[in-house]
Amino acid sequence: MKECLVAVDVGGTNIASGLVDFQGNVLARGKKPTCAGTGVQNVLGRIMDAVAAEIEKSQALGCTPVGVGLGIPGLQDSLKGLSYSAANLDPAWKQIKVTAQVEQRFGLPAEMDNDVRCHALGEKLYGAGRGVENLILITLGTGIGAGIFLNGKMFYGAGGCGGEVGHVTIMEDGPLCSCGNHGCVEALCGAPGISRRAREEIAAGVQSKILALAGGDLNAVTPKLIYEAALAGDPLAEKVMAQTGNYLGIAMAGVVNIINPELLIIGGGVAGAGEMLIGKVRETIKKRAMAQQAALVKVVSAELGEDAGLIGAAMLLPVRGRIDSQRMEQNLR
Amino acid sequence: MKECLVAVDVGGTNIASGLVDFQGNVLARGKKPTCAGTGVQNVLGRIMDAVAAEIEKSQALGCTPVGVGLGIPGLQDSLKGLSYSAANLDPAWKQIKVTAQVEQRFGLPAEMDNDVRCHALGEKLYGAGRGVENLILITLGTGIGAGIFLNGKMFYGAGGCGGEVGHVTIMEDGPLCSCGNHGCVEALCGAPGISRRAREEIAAGVQSKILALAGGDLNAVTPKLIYEAALAGDPLAEKVMAQTGNYLGIAMAGVVNIINPELLIIGGGVAGAGEMLIGKVRETIKKRAMAQQAALVKVVSAELGEDAGLIGAAMLLPVRGRIDSQRMEQNLR
Repeated sequence: MKECLVAVDVGGTNIASGLVDFQGNVLARGKKPTCAGTGVQNVLGRIMDAVAAEIEKSQALGCTPVGVGLGIPGLQDSLKGLSYSAANLDPAWKQIKVTAQVEQRFGLPAEMDNDVRCHALGEKLYGAGRGVENLILITLGTGIGAGIFLNGKMFYGAGGCGGEVGHVTIMEDGPLCSCGNHGCVEALCGAPGISRRAREEIAAGVQSKILALAGGDLNAVTPKLIYEAALAGDPLAEKVMAQTGNYLGIAMAGVVNIINPELLIIGGGVAGAGEMLIGKVRETIKKRAMAQQAALVKVVSAELGEDAGLIGAAMLLPVRGRIDSQRMEQNLR
Repeated sequence: MKECLVAVDVGGTNIASGLVDFQGNVLARGKKPTCAGTGVQNVLGRIMDAVAAEIEKSQALGCTPVGVGLGIPGLQDSLKGLSYSAANLDPAWKQIKVTAQVEQRFGLPAEMDNDVRCHALGEKLYGAGRGVENLILITLGTGIGAGIFLNGKMFYGAGGCGGEVGHVTIMEDGPLCSCGNHGCVEALCGAPGISRRAREEIAAGVQSKILALAGGDLNAVTPKLIYEAALAGDPLAEKVMAQTGNYLGIAMAGVVNIINPELLIIGGGVAGAGEMLIGKVRETIKKRAMAQQAALVKVVSAELGEDAGLIGAAMLLPVRGRIDSQRMEQNLR
């Protein structure tokens, strides 16, 4: 029977799960609410249930699960399988040995990493980053995260927390960020920051189609509605989208100057705005980054969508040598 | 006879040279004007003369030179010994095979790297970075450069230009930088940027001891005079120094979030202001960087001064395996 891997991508809202083969194909998908904040044992139990559900599907699909990969948000020692804290899963989530618990319950080898790093690994192996050794993937959502590959290897930093490109300051006295700093690019271009910038202008009297799209409720404004209004030619929406691309470009020009990557991949829900956003990011990087760095880096959209997190989580096992990596396609180093 | 290495640290103003032993001691030092802009052959000839002068000194010192290491400003492929361009040596300096020319002339193995990376290597091996595997050294002078070590190895980036932390934007519409961007930390905190900030306030009517220290000539204002005025309690000078530390801290907090290093070493002439400057950088990083990154990183002064560039240039040979690295002290990996 064909072998496959169980993958789980744990988010603050949903736990996505799936079965992934050694060619990076997602054979099955599942999703259930995370029920964040309902207690560590409950959230952990729901992760276990997600693994169990995928294993159950495998026989009907004619494949045998040989390992489990997990993408977990928050702070962790990925190589030890230890999740230090994940406030958006549960306030009491501290020092959880996620992989040890999975291995004990299911008798399969398990590996974990940060959810954004899993996303980056998926895109590197089977998506927009195929064959590229030095790349950065950023995810644009509620927060702004990144996974960085240097010489083909995932970059962690000395303390395992490297790659926090969302918390580069681009405006000294800018809005307060969730990290406690002011003017981080995440505070301006995370989904709540984008919505707030539009909301503030509408509250100040600027006319915009955004308000009608939000059913007249300022609190219902989202980046998706702003994008739709911009597509319909709404001037405020166009301005907010351009500002977002500009702010992201300012931060990424700095990152590109420091890391000098070949490729910058932009993913996450907010990146659904496609070229309207990414074109402006690209333009700002070309304008602001140093000539050599700007000439080298390509700026592209992610290709795999939500599957990237599942594929990357699954591939942690062969990448870390827990499973014979020759089973993967040859494009994976 | 004891063996030693010839080191040359080429700057826009002076060519520093020396003999360095395998314990990182500088046995001899020399200095001559670079005569930048007088033609490629002339500048290159002066570099060769510096090497020859050090070799000549060696016999009297009882040591035999076994290799030449060079720190060169500008853009280069360090491992190939090819200097692409160095506008502050000569506008026509393009595609110069520096090490091949040195090897041919002197019959000794030669290696080169960017001058700031040599500085960082010196501090890593024998200065403030001894025994630390993940560190960033920044040099504060006319420009702001950096050398980054990850897992004990010099970081270059995919295109060899990585580590340009001086060109992180911290002020969207800030002053024009030499790189063409606006609001780079270098445009605000490079020596000309520091002087300009003081000058502008004095020109606008702010009373300050800086002007008297500069002999009444606004164009003679330097960071050193500003530092001296701050030591004497001058309010404008204190403000400019604090601003400088704050701006540097904003940029470095972002760098620390991305790279997650154990150590940030601050060197270069402007760092002569010591704790008055570095204390403010440290405070701003602690305030703005993410908790885990801020808790890990130590912020310290460089220890070796100008010798760092010579020691680092010399050590390129053993570090790259051109000379038996066991001859170096055991603290060198």
